[in-house]
Amino acid sequence: MSIPNLEKVSSNKAFEGELSKYRFKSAALGGLNANFNLFVPADASNSNKVPVLVYLSGLTCTEDNGTQKGSFIGPAASQGIALLFPDTSPRGAGIEGEDDDWDFGTGAGFYLNATNPKWATHYNMYTHVSMELPQVLEAAGVPIDFNRQSIFGHSMGGHGALTMYLSSSTKQYRSASAFAPISNPVEAPWGKKAFTNYLQGGIEEAKGKYDATELISKHKDPVHILVDWGTGDQFYKDGQLLPENFLKAARDAGYDEVQVRVRSQPGYDHSYYFMSTFASDHIHFHANFLKA
Amino acid sequence: MSIPNLEKVSSNKAFEGELSKYRFKSAALGGLNANFNLFVPADASNSNKVPVLVYLSGLTCTEDNGTQKGSFIGPAASQGIALLFPDTSPRGAGIEGEDDDWDFGTGAGFYLNATNPKWATHYNMYTHVSMELPQVLEAAGVPIDFNRQSIFGHSMGGHGALTMYLSSSTKQYRSASAFAPISNPVEAPWGKKAFTNYLQGGIEEAKGKYDATELISKHKDPVHILVDWGTGDQFYKDGQLLPENFLKAARDAGYDEVQVRVRSQPGYDHSYYFMSTFASDHIHFHANFLKA
Repeated sequence: MSIPNLEKVSSNKAFEGELSKYRFKSAALGGLNANFNLFVPADASNSNKVPVLVYLSGLTCTEDNGTQKGSFIGPAASQGIALLFPDTSPRGAGIEGEDDDWDFGTGAGFYLNATNPKWATHYNMYTHVSMELPQVLEAAGVPIDFNRQSIFGHSMGGHGALTMYLSSSTKQYRSASAFAPISNPVEAPWGKKAFTNYLQGGIEEAKGKYDATELISKHKDPVHILVDWGTGDQFYKDGQLLPENFLKAARDAGYDEVQVRVRSQPGYDHSYYFMSTFASDHIHFHANFLKA
Repeated sequence: MSIPNLEKVSSNKAFEGELSKYRFKSAALGGLNANFNLFVPADASNSNKVPVLVYLSGLTCTEDNGTQKGSFIGPAASQGIALLFPDTSPRGAGIEGEDDDWDFGTGAGFYLNATNPKWATHYNMYTHVSMELPQVLEAAGVPIDFNRQSIFGHSMGGHGALTMYLSSSTKQYRSASAFAPISNPVEAPWGKKAFTNYLQGGIEEAKGKYDATELISKHKDPVHILVDWGTGDQFYKDGQLLPENFLKAARDAGYDEVQVRVRSQPGYDHSYYFMSTFASDHIHFHANFLKA
């Protein structure tokens, strides 16, 4: 594999560590430039590589929302965990209809690999997040131990985190957590729209790969999953999230609340204020497994 | 005084409390609509009024930057302190030149009361923050004890916090803190531009009212002041902040480091990442006085 050059776009000191924005030409995204943010805690070095927690953001977001609004960096710094913030889609692919809707196309890559030829060259966020970014970072020599990865996300990114965790044949991630995830997208309007357009096989193709509820129902191995959702979340009320479906499928598959914890949080909504409230909880949940 | 109606624009649950955005017709700002955000912790009630900490944001910001990026709400909630986030200027005054520059006019009210007739009808952020907002909120019955106020801010808002604290004849605020404040604006390009335009008496008029370094040099009473600034801050390097001038004036006036603490933070810049790193520190500093 040839290693693309990482261009450092900006850098900020934060909680004694360093938050950097990088840009590189992404093979997975068909040669487009891709941005991501990376926080490396102060004590990381080549002789002291640190674990990494990947944060996947939701619809309309970029790599910046989680870094700016998530309140994740402080707790991660104190736990000695790196944070990787990918973007949510390719940018500037120039595909017809890509920018027509806020819930599809740009800003809405859905963390899948498109099979519809119209989208398949560029819309491969699954490979970009789970394979390309770790490879590029390891090749660049960042002081991260990629044998210790976990993943979390919000809304569409919660969907991404749960499905990447459950579908990895190599057990790439030690744990997964999500805020207000799209938990059963084959049954939700956002998911149906994405799958019908991105995938040649449509919703049927999605079931085996990109639906957390479908995946947990067939899963056999032990898992470490935490989900929080707010009862005041308008998208929950609209039937986009369906966390009860995921919970029921997990219990039916024999997972108890130690392995799959799904918490309804009274009155909280879909915003980053909700997430920041439970940010420290999620970081500490992952620290249990990343530092074991 | 007639009490303008407060319109609740939005509300988010956060850290068990409530963050709300309000809008009202501001007399201090010449009848324009003004927005602010207010965080009230969960345990506040009319029989348990809580102290309030006012956060003043910097150039180009609105009432939202501090709420979204500051990481202030978590520590304030755990301390039982309300947070008030005013805007940084009037909006839509329609004055010629108001929107020409990012460092003057809209988004850059400088927390003063304009005396130049061109600006004097609307640009009265000093009165808006220090007098009007507390009156409006008290009249609206929010569960805040306005006998326990402190104030902090960033950059232009750090200037605002220090000058409002030092110039209040009624000791309105118990303590003041600032991140990267414009500490001696009569000597800095941003300050000179603002004062020359907003004030009929220009820089000379500003010295007695709106310059923290000038004010501390003449101050007699005990103070509680904390300032953090980053040595990697480009605006510090450009001579906009001048924290050493403030520190020297404070020491020359006899204030020791218990009363005026000015900390240089190696490598930190002007961003909200810098602030979020020390957010908890500042909240706890004010808690010492607000909860005494």
